[in-house]
Amino acid sequence: MKVYIEPIGKLINEFSKLPGVGAKTAQRFAYKIINMSENEAKSFAEAILNVKKNVHYCSICGNYSEGDICEVCQKRTSEVICVVKEPKDVIAIEKLNEFNGTYHVLHGTISPLDGIGPNDINIKGLLSRISKGGVTEVIMATNPDVEGEATALYISNLLKPLGIKVTRLAHGIPIGTDLEYADEVSLARAFIDRKTL
Amino acid sequence: MKVYIEPIGKLINEFSKLPGVGAKTAQRFAYKIINMSENEAKSFAEAILNVKKNVHYCSICGNYSEGDICEVCQKRTSEVICVVKEPKDVIAIEKLNEFNGTYHVLHGTISPLDGIGPNDINIKGLLSRISKGGVTEVIMATNPDVEGEATALYISNLLKPLGIKVTRLAHGIPIGTDLEYADEVSLARAFIDRKTL
Repeated sequence: MKVYIEPIGKLINEFSKLPGVGAKTAQRFAYKIINMSENEAKSFAEAILNVKKNVHYCSICGNYSEGDICEVCQKRTSEVICVVKEPKDVIAIEKLNEFNGTYHVLHGTISPLDGIGPNDINIKGLLSRISKGGVTEVIMATNPDVEGEATALYISNLLKPLGIKVTRLAHGIPIGTDLEYADEVSLARAFIDRKTL
Repeated sequence: MKVYIEPIGKLINEFSKLPGVGAKTAQRFAYKIINMSENEAKSFAEAILNVKKNVHYCSICGNYSEGDICEVCQKRTSEVICVVKEPKDVIAIEKLNEFNGTYHVLHGTISPLDGIGPNDINIKGLLSRISKGGVTEVIMATNPDVEGEATALYISNLLKPLGIKVTRLAHGIPIGTDLEYADEVSLARAFIDRKTL
C-alpha cells in the first residue's frame, strides 16, 4: 500500500517544490496544514492565489508592484537610480532605510555561459528612463560575482558617454570580521580600494 | 514605506506559520511562488484546500483517511493492534514494511502537566475495538519519553485484566552506534533488557 493517502501525498509533493525543502520537512509542513483550522488553511491558499493575481511588474523600474507603477516610483524622484539584479535585492536595500532614490530591476545578469546576453535583461528600460533626463547618478548594486561585475561594467560603458555618473557599491572586509578570518578575495579588494584617512 | 507590497507580505506571513520557517525562509518560499506559473500556484493552493476537505479521521483507528474507514483497517485483520501517539508515527512504521496488523492512533499521550488525562486521548476507541473480540496482542509504540511510557503503562494496566498480551517496542543502543557514543539512558536500558544469545 502507498504510505500517504492521496491528498496528503499531493500536498507533500507541492511543498517539496519549495527551495531547500526535502521529504521530511514537506511532511511536517503538510501535517501543520492538516492541523490548521478550515479558515487558516483557506487564507493560506488564498494568499498563494492572490500573489499570482495581484503582483505585477512596475512598468518603470521592473520591481514587483500591485498597480501599474510601484510605490517607490510613485513617491520618489529618479535623480539617483540603484540598479539591482532581482526584486529581493530591493527589499535588502529598503530595509536599511538609507537610500532615497529609485530602483531598476534587471531580472538577471549578463551570463554568456547560460546564454543570457544584454538583450535578455531589463537594460533597455533603464536606457529609456535615462533618455527622459533628470538622472544624475546610477548606482550599480549587482552582486559581487563574475556575472554581476560584468553587467555593472557593461552598463557603465553604455552610460558614461551620456555623461551620467556611474558608481559601484564598495567591496571589502565585512564590518565586524577579524582580518584573520576575512576571505582572501575581499581582503585583497580591501587593499586595492583602501581610503585615505 | 512598508518593505513588502501587501500580497507578498501576506504570503510571507502565511509561510512563517509553518514549523521551523523564519522570515528569510518564508521570503524565499514566497518568491518561489511568485516565479511559479499560474497553474503551478493554483495546484499548490488546491492541494492545501483539498487536504482540509478530504482528510478525515478513520472511524476505527483514528488515523488520517480519505473515506470513513482507512485503507489499513479495510484490508488487514485486527488481531495485532499497534498503538501510536500520532498519524506520522503510522507513516514511520508503514515505511518499514514489517508490520502487518492495524494501528490505533491516540492523538496525544497522557501528560498531567499539560492537563491531558486518559479521557483526552483516544483510549476509549481502543477499548471498544478490543471489546468486539479477536484482538490477541496490543503493541505499545508510544515514544520512549515520560509521557509515552506513562501512557503505555496506563493502557497496559487496563488491558491485562482482559487477557490481552500487551508488548512494548524494545529500547536500547541504536544499530550502528559505537558503545562509546551511545547516550547513557539507552545504554543503561540495553543492560537491563539484555537478551540471552
